[in-house]
Amino acid sequence: MNLTITDVRLTPILVADPPLLNTQGVHQPYTPRLIVEVETADAVVGFGETYGDTKYLELARPFAEKLIGRQVSDLNGLFAVADEVAVAETRVSGQVDVGGLRGVQTADKLRLSVVSGFEVACLDALGKALGLPVHALLGGKVRDAVEYSAYLFYKWAGHPAGVAAEKDDWGAALDPAGVVAQARLFKERYGFTSFKLKGGVFPPDEEIAAVRALAEAFPGHPLRLDPNGAWSVATSLRVAEELGDVLEYLEDPALGTSAMAEVAAGTGVPLATNMCVTTFAEIAEAFGKGAVQVVLSDHHYWGGLRNTQQLAAICRTFGVGVSMHSNTHLGISLAAMTQVAATVPGLHHACDSHYPWQSEDVLTERLVFEGGKVAVSDAPGLGVEVDRERLRALHQRWADDDGGLRERDDAAAMRVAEPGWVTPGVPRW
Amino acid sequence: MNLTITDVRLTPILVADPPLLNTQGVHQPYTPRLIVEVETADAVVGFGETYGDTKYLELARPFAEKLIGRQVSDLNGLFAVADEVAVAETRVSGQVDVGGLRGVQTADKLRLSVVSGFEVACLDALGKALGLPVHALLGGKVRDAVEYSAYLFYKWAGHPAGVAAEKDDWGAALDPAGVVAQARLFKERYGFTSFKLKGGVFPPDEEIAAVRALAEAFPGHPLRLDPNGAWSVATSLRVAEELGDVLEYLEDPALGTSAMAEVAAGTGVPLATNMCVTTFAEIAEAFGKGAVQVVLSDHHYWGGLRNTQQLAAICRTFGVGVSMHSNTHLGISLAAMTQVAATVPGLHHACDSHYPWQSEDVLTERLVFEGGKVAVSDAPGLGVEVDRERLRALHQRWADDDGGLRERDDAAAMRVAEPGWVTPGVPRW
Repeated sequence: MNLTITDVRLTPILVADPPLLNTQGVHQPYTPRLIVEVETADAVVGFGETYGDTKYLELARPFAEKLIGRQVSDLNGLFAVADEVAVAETRVSGQVDVGGLRGVQTADKLRLSVVSGFEVACLDALGKALGLPVHALLGGKVRDAVEYSAYLFYKWAGHPAGVAAEKDDWGAALDPAGVVAQARLFKERYGFTSFKLKGGVFPPDEEIAAVRALAEAFPGHPLRLDPNGAWSVATSLRVAEELGDVLEYLEDPALGTSAMAEVAAGTGVPLATNMCVTTFAEIAEAFGKGAVQVVLSDHHYWGGLRNTQQLAAICRTFGVGVSMHSNTHLGISLAAMTQVAATVPGLHHACDSHYPWQSEDVLTERLVFEGGKVAVSDAPGLGVEVDRERLRALHQRWADDDGGLRERDDAAAMRVAEPGWVTPGVPRW
Repeated sequence: MNLTITDVRLTPILVADPPLLNTQGVHQPYTPRLIVEVETADAVVGFGETYGDTKYLELARPFAEKLIGRQVSDLNGLFAVADEVAVAETRVSGQVDVGGLRGVQTADKLRLSVVSGFEVACLDALGKALGLPVHALLGGKVRDAVEYSAYLFYKWAGHPAGVAAEKDDWGAALDPAGVVAQARLFKERYGFTSFKLKGGVFPPDEEIAAVRALAEAFPGHPLRLDPNGAWSVATSLRVAEELGDVLEYLEDPALGTSAMAEVAAGTGVPLATNMCVTTFAEIAEAFGKGAVQVVLSDHHYWGGLRNTQQLAAICRTFGVGVSMHSNTHLGISLAAMTQVAATVPGLHHACDSHYPWQSEDVLTERLVFEGGKVAVSDAPGLGVEVDRERLRALHQRWADDDGGLRERDDAAAMRVAEPGWVTPGVPRW
């Protein structure tokens, strides 16, 4: 058995994304992802997936070159490789725009997001080489299926007229009735029993009404609301007060550790976050201030599956809950999320996943939610197979793009419908 | 490849121990250890080592039975097995005497010490089955050798007359000159360049003089002093003041988080601990109070090599240093310590090891310190081989014992020389 990495391939792609609304704007019709392949001397190929914007790709290319000749089992070494890769322009300030709604933006976080793509690919290859599932490389599963939450979005029926886009069959959801209809569809199609609404789109009273409607339609089911930090402390406390009896947790109501700590001090509703605690460096202050009660991990920007386990251990040690955040992703990442989630003890909240919104995938066979859960594969590696023709076609779309879709920009997408739109200031309400 | 565990063997042994002094008394001439073997369906055997007192053995026996039929790769599952194993008598109070100088004593900690023996054995077997060193199962080494510190003890030339014991060639060390002579021998034999003195034995001024003598004999070398919590806060601060210019850190000067926090607040000398923070449950309070600056991990009572990595991740996240504690141990544990230490980034302090004091081992070939370091083995598993004849002989000594040596009791050993000796109250000075 030769575990030496002999080839690394990077394939940027564009995948269809429905017109999902958030506080910054709306999802573009296509969103970039990067598919990572590592191949060993024995011709074993492992796959990973991460963010696909140009800045990730530019960092991934020199990273990939440095992997040649290393052992696919040398996962701790990936962080040293990341440090070696020159990102001179971002190192100057230490700050870089990693885009979206994922908290503090630093060169370090950008590097970790790239590390995660390679780490998952290496774990997939290592598992295939050894004949072991990834969860066994992470110490073994403690559950046979991982529960996910229905990720509800306000959305338009379709992307703006005249914009090249794939159609979706979810319909519009712009009021409480629309949100409940979407939730019913989620339950019907995938069996989800907990529901999260992406908020920060409409004034708080409208979103309160939507969550109330969900509570009436699904009594006793765990509900979550996530305005991505769009609210003031006062608004956050008012929403917590009004929805406290039905919320499993409130996610990132206000922006920043201080504001979150103020909200936490004023309500018994647990606060979850994927914006306030998004790096190891942010943990000490946030935990010290009691700013968050549930950290939503994301193996992409936390630096991989093993870092996700470490984050979970830290949370467990400090009595903070843990669950999983999701951005737009495909089946490789869902498999990775499921494998690591299977190994984390005390996972008391269903994980988030955008996967149902992605009609396209690079897999030969899509992963399946049954009763809201994804079964933990015991097949070698991640247990998924990539369809090379689909990968090629989605890459071709990326190669052909000249409309700026290679960089995710929800505000730009919104400007197509609403010229003059700018990302609202925070707090928006 | 079949990773199913088909047999588990437990071999309690007694190994020779020199008359090393500490604040509780003196090491007995023989000390119990437990050697754990797991065997897979493919006849691959992995070895682990942990504490050998009867209470560990009694817990390990039902644990061993439950492992049959499980996968050797199912390391996360070991904690569930530990929970299943009935320790009814200890569960009643939650408190149990785990003996010695290792901090809080709970049934949970006892269980973790047993888990660690099986975890290391499983990792050894898994590595052998896969053809990978244990460090590769832990994400890969980030260094090729692990540095250890010379572990200096006040000691008698020999055990009391009339006591059955092995002889040692280290001589007595009961004053500054004796401590320096011992340190020179450590340097000569093993190349150690940092030195730790086990204190709490003589009045603080004598131990200050010993450390001063070490500083003069080895200028610029890292020095540590560890009285095992024997001092008051005031004494701790006085020692810190007097030795601040030569100490790398002061280890457990006072007992308990509050006292340690008081000492830490009053000195710039870093405080290390293996008594104040010995379980995950103790971390939040101690870190919150700034009570410790270096946690000395011990894979035995932290629950294994993977828990050690998690502890290191927690320390890194909170800006707390990490190094490694040692109790009396043999080569299996030194190999395990070296394998995990090789994977921990930011290990800025040499690890402790009692190994040089152990003239007996169960290995066919002893591990070697060169320049104070142990090379990280890349051989499958732990990279050590057990000599069955030596194991049998050391077990026979255990089987033949009727002198109470199956339970480590440093105070009892001291009473042989000083009738009426009782473990001193704390603070002693």
